[in-house]
Amino acid sequence: MSSTYEYPRPALAVDAVVFGLDDEDLKVLLIRRDLEPFRDRWALPGGFVRIEESLEQAVRRELQEETGIAQVFLEQLYTFGAVDRDPRERVVAVAYYALVKLSDHRIKAATDARDAAWFAVSEARGLAFDHERILAVALERLKNKVRYQPIGFELLPPQFTLSQLQRLYETILEQPLDKRNFRKKILGMDFLVALDEVQKDVAHRAARLYRFDRKKYQQLQKHGFNFEI
Amino acid sequence: MSSTYEYPRPALAVDAVVFGLDDEDLKVLLIRRDLEPFRDRWALPGGFVRIEESLEQAVRRELQEETGIAQVFLEQLYTFGAVDRDPRERVVAVAYYALVKLSDHRIKAATDARDAAWFAVSEARGLAFDHERILAVALERLKNKVRYQPIGFELLPPQFTLSQLQRLYETILEQPLDKRNFRKKILGMDFLVALDEVQKDVAHRAARLYRFDRKKYQQLQKHGFNFEI
Repeated sequence: MSSTYEYPRPALAVDAVVFGLDDEDLKVLLIRRDLEPFRDRWALPGGFVRIEESLEQAVRRELQEETGIAQVFLEQLYTFGAVDRDPRERVVAVAYYALVKLSDHRIKAATDARDAAWFAVSEARGLAFDHERILAVALERLKNKVRYQPIGFELLPPQFTLSQLQRLYETILEQPLDKRNFRKKILGMDFLVALDEVQKDVAHRAARLYRFDRKKYQQLQKHGFNFEI
Repeated sequence: MSSTYEYPRPALAVDAVVFGLDDEDLKVLLIRRDLEPFRDRWALPGGFVRIEESLEQAVRRELQEETGIAQVFLEQLYTFGAVDRDPRERVVAVAYYALVKLSDHRIKAATDARDAAWFAVSEARGLAFDHERILAVALERLKNKVRYQPIGFELLPPQFTLSQLQRLYETILEQPLDKRNFRKKILGMDFLVALDEVQKDVAHRAARLYRFDRKKYQQLQKHGFNFEI
């Protein structure tokens, strides 16, 4: 059953940039295309929006179908609408992005994806379509976001050391941070609670553990406080 | 000449939220619809994307056609894709926003718009479609943006007083700012140059004039400085 319209319409697609964090570096979830165009090339998971589903539903469905990943908090990134971004015909893509803890998610390729894998962001090259550009835009947005919103804490265990927190920021921001400045800034923000506990089973001197006090953060925010790393 | 596709496709539209600043308040540019649905209701300027034009080209064309406004720096805001946001059929709208100096732009309604006018943001109520929601999202983005990027300066004359600058921020942020804190913050940022001149032709004591040093700002930014009001 085909559909006929008075004027030509672009196809509408969704793509997902899922960043995964482990101890080493920032990764991005890619699939290997099983169909033309760009068959065998790595690409962001995604696909066409069905007429009865919202954009969010579409990107969730595609992500689950192609990579097996569900229950990810996806945020809309940007809509890519250049006339020639797809060799087949005009396709406008609404891109979403997410940041997850890598160890929380098992991936499994299916449907249009021959394979699915985590790539270090710096090694995600030669992607299909304009997906390298989409990735670059997502990376910039992510860096901006972690600097101004305390989302990093969700990726750490409930109790963490300041070194772990610093490494998390360094990984996402892809740059080293001065230890003394970082601690001063973080502790000056007043929503990190120093616990009476220290790390266990470590070879070096055990570091103090902290937790993030979300209630306090929300209170501070109400009073005009602004998070910034 | 109609177009036929294997699967149904949403229609793709663009909408523009153009904020205009004058001495009194923050305004938004609306058009009065001349066609169903929502005939006679006020709405954001916008319309359908043609198959051969980019999203940016489409929103520029619609804005010029419906309001006469050209040469505005439009930035993509968000894509609204709820299944039922248009009573006719599914329409996905890519929204853009801009901030202009009201006195720089003359408006003139045409094509699908019976009328075009500036409304105080607080009085833009009862709009067509989900345009109130789009406006709310744009307003939030604008407030966030002026706080972290020095875009306000483009809306002032090249030489301005600190009171003018403060009023600009208060208008956009829709809240009063403490004068002493504001001055301390702004002058601490080191890219405002105090001139040897003062205001002319004012009844009260003439205030010192300042200018924004964009080069200095860009240098500071390179060294990791972050603007924040």
